[in-house]
Amino acid sequence: MKFSASQIAGLLNGTIEGDANASISTLSKIEEGVPGSISFLSNPKYTAYLYQTQASIVIVENTLELTGPVSATLIRVESAAAAFATLLEMYNQVKLNKSGISPQSFISPSAKVGTNIYAGEFSFVGENAVIGNNVKIYPQVYIGDNAVIGDNTTLFAGVKIYSETQIGKNCIIHAGTVIGSDGFRFNPENDHKKVPQIGNVIIEDDVEIGANCAIDRATLGSTILRKGVKFDNLIHIAHNVEIGEHTYFAAQGVVGGSTKIGKNCMISGQVGMVGHLQIADRTTMTAQTGISKSITKPGETYMGSPAFEISKYRKAYIQFRNLEALAKRVEQLEKQGK
Amino acid sequence: MKFSASQIAGLLNGTIEGDANASISTLSKIEEGVPGSISFLSNPKYTAYLYQTQASIVIVENTLELTGPVSATLIRVESAAAAFATLLEMYNQVKLNKSGISPQSFISPSAKVGTNIYAGEFSFVGENAVIGNNVKIYPQVYIGDNAVIGDNTTLFAGVKIYSETQIGKNCIIHAGTVIGSDGFRFNPENDHKKVPQIGNVIIEDDVEIGANCAIDRATLGSTILRKGVKFDNLIHIAHNVEIGEHTYFAAQGVVGGSTKIGKNCMISGQVGMVGHLQIADRTTMTAQTGISKSITKPGETYMGSPAFEISKYRKAYIQFRNLEALAKRVEQLEKQGK
Amino acid sequence: MKFSASQIAGLLNGTIEGDANASISTLSKIEEGVPGSISFLSNPKYTAYLYQTQASIVIVENTLELTGPVSATLIRVESAAAAFATLLEMYNQVKLNKSGISPQSFISPSAKVGTNIYAGEFSFVGENAVIGNNVKIYPQVYIGDNAVIGDNTTLFAGVKIYSETQIGKNCIIHAGTVIGSDGFRFNPENDHKKVPQIGNVIIEDDVEIGANCAIDRATLGSTILRKGVKFDNLIHIAHNVEIGEHTYFAAQGVVGGSTKIGKNCMISGQVGMVGHLQIADRTTMTAQTGISKSITKPGETYMGSPAFEISKYRKAYIQFRNLEALAKRVEQLEKQGK
Repeated sequence: MKFSASQIAGLLNGTIEGDANASISTLSKIEEGVPGSISFLSNPKYTAYLYQTQASIVIVENTLELTGPVSATLIRVESAAAAFATLLEMYNQVKLNKSGISPQSFISPSAKVGTNIYAGEFSFVGENAVIGNNVKIYPQVYIGDNAVIGDNTTLFAGVKIYSETQIGKNCIIHAGTVIGSDGFRFNPENDHKKVPQIGNVIIEDDVEIGANCAIDRATLGSTILRKGVKFDNLIHIAHNVEIGEHTYFAAQGVVGGSTKIGKNCMISGQVGMVGHLQIADRTTMTAQTGISKSITKPGETYMGSPAFEISKYRKAYIQFRNLEALAKRVEQLEKQGK
Repeated sequence: MKFSASQIAGLLNGTIEGDANASISTLSKIEEGVPGSISFLSNPKYTAYLYQTQASIVIVENTLELTGPVSATLIRVESAAAAFATLLEMYNQVKLNKSGISPQSFISPSAKVGTNIYAGEFSFVGENAVIGNNVKIYPQVYIGDNAVIGDNTTLFAGVKIYSETQIGKNCIIHAGTVIGSDGFRFNPENDHKKVPQIGNVIIEDDVEIGANCAIDRATLGSTILRKGVKFDNLIHIAHNVEIGEHTYFAAQGVVGGSTKIGKNCMISGQVGMVGHLQIADRTTMTAQTGISKSITKPGETYMGSPAFEISKYRKAYIQFRNLEALAKRVEQLEKQGK
Repeated sequence: MKFSASQIAGLLNGTIEGDANASISTLSKIEEGVPGSISFLSNPKYTAYLYQTQASIVIVENTLELTGPVSATLIRVESAAAAFATLLEMYNQVKLNKSGISPQSFISPSAKVGTNIYAGEFSFVGENAVIGNNVKIYPQVYIGDNAVIGDNTTLFAGVKIYSETQIGKNCIIHAGTVIGSDGFRFNPENDHKKVPQIGNVIIEDDVEIGANCAIDRATLGSTILRKGVKFDNLIHIAHNVEIGEHTYFAAQGVVGGSTKIGKNCMISGQVGMVGHLQIADRTTMTAQTGISKSITKPGETYMGSPAFEISKYRKAYIQFRNLEALAKRVEQLEKQGK
């Protein structure tokens, strides 16, 4: 897709300075601008790049005063950052504007399918599944029997949705993620027999989940991700976990079975929580934290494994770094005492 | 699938109280019972829910004495918990009772395929692969050349089995798991050349593996998971590892190359072991433990990174939490000494 | 595939002792040799196995003097290790010598495809994608629109390559790995709106990536893996990360957004780095290390979380193990002071 400076100026309600026929097919940072790309200048710290950039078009603010020659075509707008954000979204919408049901997909005759969906090659929709309007099912996606996918949700290539899973509206699930696999429950005392996992997973609206995550179904009842939860890549969620609205979860987290996490928590990378905990709203956990006890007070920050409150942890860790010196000081005191 | 109270009472050899035509299509916890579901009451702590539940049918014990009106149909049996467990298994069997070879699958003409198998859409079976009886191959599964899959084993959607892998009977492998990828061996001294990985993976009977795991083939010889090993999600097993019978492994564990783990070990989430270790039988490792040395004494529990014996670790960690105070006490002693 | 001793001796320019018609179909370690396999003896420590092995053929050195009867056919060469390495590579080449475009694959009419490629069943190549010569695309692989795959690169079963990704020559990517998923960026202050991720991933030549990794595209610009980078399984790389030439990364590592890692680093398993760091060349990180600050001095080794220099860490950790004893010594000193 190519766009000319005049087309873009029209979209952004901007004014052109330079070649109105300059055309672009991609977007770039101003310091990395290549021919055929459009960039923007908002932060004054980057002004010097305007005079060096190879970008074909640069969006700048109406108030900018040039101090030298610029090779790029300029488009002047009120807010360059806002205009560029608009372009980013439009670009993404065009790029992701897939539609149509591939003859090489498989949709069970008993499935109910909404209007304007995309079902890519080698995608599979099981019996009695319900697919909303404008759903995008990329190639090699699997949607099991009785699963429900809400309107405007996108499942990228190779996502695997087990049977009975319910996914809300406006969700995005990235490639390779598995939702609804069996919880990890066996009975070592009874010949290691598997505990049947017959619950499901419920994912509410506006949830985004990264690539190659694994979210287990409940033993009975539901594993639940509430509205607006955001997951990075490679996260493991055990059976019967519940995660509150707008909680953010960075890569490679682990949550043990039946733990309930509150709203608006910020969980960094490689964090682990054992099972059967309650985590208060607005809890923050730093990277690699290990949580072994429930957290009842909202809004606190935790660090370490097992974790405790961050300022106390940092003070202890400062001493840990110098622990050999402390031990020598104790030794010295003991010598003096003799 | 719908079942009536009278059908279920027949299956469980129970007695009906209430509407024998009440019908259900799913199972629920008594405290979360919804219309159209069947629940059970076994633990007396939950008795109050019996009078509130919306479940259409509740399984109760013969000895239960009602103290008020109940809207659900009751089915009385000797052990409500055992009866419900029977229902769970039956439900799962019906749900997972897939069969038939899809015309949209690919099975190599040289593969040997047992009786009564399921091969879902877009599944692939390579040359000379051997598939046992009653094997379930879900959509988008890949089984490489010469792989062997034992009777009654289930491979969920998108499992990838590399060539030469051998999987036993009655195994369950969840979606997205990769078995038989190359071990991570290169030669930094010789132009970073790859060390060819021509061994395989052997998985014995009754093994269950969670979603999105990655189990590497041996450089030469075999990476082995012994009978009854149970894996949670997102676990990495390097080349030439061996894991003993009935060892349990929670999510996101890592085992380095050539490490041998004993029988009946219990390994918590996010545990890591470096390569070339021997781990004794019945070893327990707590969450996020890092094992850097072999463990020779069976039945011990380890914590920390690098790990040591748990009771010693906990004592050290109690002091660590108060390390700033300890440092101040030493400072105070030094002042006193002057 | 079966090979006779005389065929192999011809390939290796070796001399046969014993049955020239002995035939093998696989390779083995001498201590695990089974009938029908070929093994080798190079390290004198393993000499005793020569007289016990069940391998049908053993490669030995010209200089070896036998001290007893050997049942295997011997092939004498100058260097047994080198000869066996040659066999390993040949075996792998034969095993991986897939070719042809399956009629059950989907290749977009606008894609450009090189000569001698393999495109397995249910693989997908998007619009305007460019596939080099001798590329191997295993079953169920997804290659998005505008992606570029260099000559001689192998994508194993189920690899998912998002649109615009660029992969160099001679790369190997293992099953289930996802490349080009969206970076994890949302705006909690602005109704949790997603920041569009419209950059890409660039992977240079000679890179190998393990199974079930997840490598995010850049927000703008590129996430870059330089020439010769080697990744183990289940690694997460965030948006806009850059990893220098020949850096090795063991399993389950995490790198936060925009971090730049130098050349020839050695990163052990389960290591995490937060975002926006600079890591110097030849840095080593031990298992489970957590890096929270930039590293400017090349060639150092780090341990712990948060990490510091390894020899200092080890000294502190020795004291940590005995922290209870140290606390008791301080208590004792306090008593003495009274």
